[in-house]
Amino acid sequence: MNYRERLAAIREQMKEQGISAYIIPSADPHISEYLPDRYKCIYFASGFTGSAGTLVITADFAGLWTDARYFVQAVEQLQDSGYELVKLQVQQAPEYIQWLAERLKAGEVVAFDAKLISVQLAQLLEQELSPVGIRIASHHDLLEPVWHDRPALPAAPAYLLDESVTGKSFPEKLTELRAVLRKQRADYHLISSLDDMAWLFNMRGSDVKCNPVVLSFALISQDKAVLFIEQDKLKEEEKLALEGFGVELQPYEEVERVLAELEACSILIDPKRTCFALYKVLAPSVKVVQNTNPTTFFKAIKNEVEIANTRKTMVKDGVAVTRFFKWLDENIGSARITEISVAEKLLEFRAAQEGFVGESFDTIAGYKAHGALPHYKATPESDVELQADGLFLLDSGGQYTTGTTDITRVISLGNLTEEEKTDYTLVLRGTIDGSTARFPKGTRGYQIDAITRKPLWDHARNYGHGTGHGVGFFLNVHEGPHVFNATPTPIDIEPGMITSVEPGLYRPEQYGIRIENLVLTVPDVVNDFAAFYTFETLTIALIDTAPVKKELLEPYHINWLNRYNQLVVEKLSPYLSAEESAWLQEKAKPV
Amino acid sequence: MNYRERLAAIREQMKEQGISAYIIPSADPHISEYLPDRYKCIYFASGFTGSAGTLVITADFAGLWTDARYFVQAVEQLQDSGYELVKLQVQQAPEYIQWLAERLKAGEVVAFDAKLISVQLAQLLEQELSPVGIRIASHHDLLEPVWHDRPALPAAPAYLLDESVTGKSFPEKLTELRAVLRKQRADYHLISSLDDMAWLFNMRGSDVKCNPVVLSFALISQDKAVLFIEQDKLKEEEKLALEGFGVELQPYEEVERVLAELEACSILIDPKRTCFALYKVLAPSVKVVQNTNPTTFFKAIKNEVEIANTRKTMVKDGVAVTRFFKWLDENIGSARITEISVAEKLLEFRAAQEGFVGESFDTIAGYKAHGALPHYKATPESDVELQADGLFLLDSGGQYTTGTTDITRVISLGNLTEEEKTDYTLVLRGTIDGSTARFPKGTRGYQIDAITRKPLWDHARNYGHGTGHGVGFFLNVHEGPHVFNATPTPIDIEPGMITSVEPGLYRPEQYGIRIENLVLTVPDVVNDFAAFYTFETLTIALIDTAPVKKELLEPYHINWLNRYNQLVVEKLSPYLSAEESAWLQEKAKPV
Repeated sequence: MNYRERLAAIREQMKEQGISAYIIPSADPHISEYLPDRYKCIYFASGFTGSAGTLVITADFAGLWTDARYFVQAVEQLQDSGYELVKLQVQQAPEYIQWLAERLKAGEVVAFDAKLISVQLAQLLEQELSPVGIRIASHHDLLEPVWHDRPALPAAPAYLLDESVTGKSFPEKLTELRAVLRKQRADYHLISSLDDMAWLFNMRGSDVKCNPVVLSFALISQDKAVLFIEQDKLKEEEKLALEGFGVELQPYEEVERVLAELEACSILIDPKRTCFALYKVLAPSVKVVQNTNPTTFFKAIKNEVEIANTRKTMVKDGVAVTRFFKWLDENIGSARITEISVAEKLLEFRAAQEGFVGESFDTIAGYKAHGALPHYKATPESDVELQADGLFLLDSGGQYTTGTTDITRVISLGNLTEEEKTDYTLVLRGTIDGSTARFPKGTRGYQIDAITRKPLWDHARNYGHGTGHGVGFFLNVHEGPHVFNATPTPIDIEPGMITSVEPGLYRPEQYGIRIENLVLTVPDVVNDFAAFYTFETLTIALIDTAPVKKELLEPYHINWLNRYNQLVVEKLSPYLSAEESAWLQEKAKPV
Repeated sequence: MNYRERLAAIREQMKEQGISAYIIPSADPHISEYLPDRYKCIYFASGFTGSAGTLVITADFAGLWTDARYFVQAVEQLQDSGYELVKLQVQQAPEYIQWLAERLKAGEVVAFDAKLISVQLAQLLEQELSPVGIRIASHHDLLEPVWHDRPALPAAPAYLLDESVTGKSFPEKLTELRAVLRKQRADYHLISSLDDMAWLFNMRGSDVKCNPVVLSFALISQDKAVLFIEQDKLKEEEKLALEGFGVELQPYEEVERVLAELEACSILIDPKRTCFALYKVLAPSVKVVQNTNPTTFFKAIKNEVEIANTRKTMVKDGVAVTRFFKWLDENIGSARITEISVAEKLLEFRAAQEGFVGESFDTIAGYKAHGALPHYKATPESDVELQADGLFLLDSGGQYTTGTTDITRVISLGNLTEEEKTDYTLVLRGTIDGSTARFPKGTRGYQIDAITRKPLWDHARNYGHGTGHGVGFFLNVHEGPHVFNATPTPIDIEPGMITSVEPGLYRPEQYGIRIENLVLTVPDVVNDFAAFYTFETLTIALIDTAPVKKELLEPYHINWLNRYNQLVVEKLSPYLSAEESAWLQEKAKPV
């Protein structure tokens, strides 16, 4: 079946079941960002491969709601699919709800698969659509009957990490979690989000591409800790270890039944990270406390062991990145190098590093105009050859057993225009201002975001994405609860948090620039005014000085840049060959 | 009765009526910031004169919850009152609710006067206290029986403004308001907030000190507009004018009865600006739509006439301020000048300006250590004489029939320390960065706040208040919905908004610095990245250059400062004597 036929088959079921609109989100039963193949429903239905979007189907319209990062890609991929692109005004906002409210009539039915819709989103749909008489029907998986070769759930093995890596044992973490549950007066706590589970149980796996997580659920109370997981995933010794900690192991699918049997108690769930299907099975006598998973807050504050491991990991990753850029420098113009081959070569260098597990996200290698697509992934059709000319953007990262990396560098391959140099320098100034900001305790990400953007705003430039995201410790490369962007997220930026600082600038059909480092919040001056914090830059890899226009920087920025590149030389040289060191030193010469 | 006796009398009633805790907020039935004397309940009960705070009384504790601006003052004023100061962590947060939740037992009763508690606050009390079994009882005015000479409601006359001043007629405003009511599906709209009412009806008065408002309520529907106002306040011709616009006039006290008679309809009220007493009289068949008053949004965007009038007003105010500082400059060290006499002298200069109505707030004249109290008001007890030495902070403003001003200047009276100069220069840098910020459409006040603070944060300094507040047009000097501070208020900063930019720095018992201008949001560059906005500085008055340390500024700041002071000379000179001009020019010499 092609996409149009699949769409027709979905519409036929909608008609039969009296459904006026059907919503297909980008999610799995854990409301994950990265999905197991089984839940790549949007790709199956429409061919769109972007990692954010929602399909909404009515009898006479089918649309993909997605944001500016994916506009170009969506237009291409949706050709002949029967779906049209609907451009989101605000990234990740469920703007289709308003669209439904305006188009549907009272009495009509909106349906979705409740396993793929968060409790929060289901409540929002209810809240917005009920007043105008539109009905909500969940538990409708209209893809299953159409998707004949639908992939099974992943069955990759899971494994436990040693405390020398994680810095804290599962029992310690469990004790802290239980204290919060008592405070929130929750008898039970359901954890659905895979990274929270991985963190709590010090468990990793490879069920989801780029995310070292394990499909599982957990139900925690003061005297029990039940882990719902496919039993084959665990080796006998790991089962014993978990059971030794008092963990009860149950099959993955049992979670629904166990939740349904709860009675006359209270349960804490995270409405953003729990699917509506599990919420709906709870008995009326169960009082639901809706709040962010406590583990989300715990996990964001890295402990000393995690921080020390991450620092070491950054050196390994820096070595790989340095070798890659040296290779590129020496081969550009002679060997055939394309965006795809670049990604393969970079992976090769990373894979040679001890403890490397895989990429932390799909490499974004964007030459010239492709760099202007912030989430570009080269395909055989789009792939272009790099020439000794223009700007090349490379955003990539690795999962290591000792930490997660995420780095973006833009390098000059030659012949830059004045505008390219100006844009590069202003973005660099943003990276420096953001990642050297000093700020009082209590400062939030939206304030760091403004400080990072200021150099670009001053020159009437801007970028359409956030300034930075939390990063896990050998876990998801996007991790909450904190974020550096303009939305008013009331989460303080605390010591121990790891966040990216990645301002950018995109000139469609010309080039894109983004310079990204990971930073660790650290304590700074304490005085009568406040306890101040600042950032330590964790990422250790050369920032190209070739495009820098010194006159757009203050002495402060120039000093920082020179010192940083010198630090890169110092930290990486012990792991580089003499030839590699010499190349790096030459590139790191002060501007 | 002294304060202790009043407290005892309140506690006696609490005991009789079974009340465990009694809350006395700083509010009137319009949830105003500035209060008519009749509602200065906190002052009556405790002697505290600050404009923000809450008294909470239990059988064995009586406390004033207030913020850092008032700590020093509160300690002094509460001596022997029976009340203790409870320091707020976060300005204006109702932190006493948590305190009550922790101290009271299930079944105990918390009471307050529902006329003085907003709907929002009452709902918050309910939400936080009910789950722990604490009961809420409203409609308890325990002050009335104790307060024998309680002032009557103010009876100052009201008057209507001409369209040449306001730029928009009442019927036009009413039409726009009604369109929003239809959109929000509200049959009725109750307006309680006095500045919204003044704006809508183009009506002003002097019922409240510093705020040219009139005690009134309004009930608007698609076919009626009822103004509840003491009829004596209006002249016959103004009554006729209002009636000519279709306004129905009713006595002030009738609002409660009229609201109680509504049935089977919907009504829009602003939960932050409507008292709980009026909400409670609504019949169960009335559907309440809770939302910010539409007039609050309208009012914030000044029209061309208001802007032109404000610009002229700033020149008048600048002339008065210039004459004052010249007088001070020439008399300091010879005449006896105190903080109180300064305020009187400044008022004299302002009063000589055409259209001056009164102060827009109580002048803050703080010499040396008194400058470190951001909301200091000199009293005969605290008043000190100014010497030719140290820093003097003057924060003041005027109400003119053509606009509202608010300006803070700090001047050197001589012999500054290096630290004073550094602090002054960094605050000035903040004022310049904030008030020259360029930012894309959609930017919020919390982003402007961060940009303004950055120069201070960079040097490990900070200030404990917001960066700026909206300012009315011949209306309240504090006006929403927008604000420049760190709280995540999701209100875009739009062209036409007038806001203060007033970073500061306070060294307790030494000195305080604050440099404040009012700015107007104006459109700036429009390009592929965004529609950018920036600010036009409205305030026209010299910024003292004597304390400036050039090495802490970039050329950009120095140029701005010199150009600004030159602009002040150009704009004010036509209204100054030759001698005054010469003095100003000398002071405005470029640094």
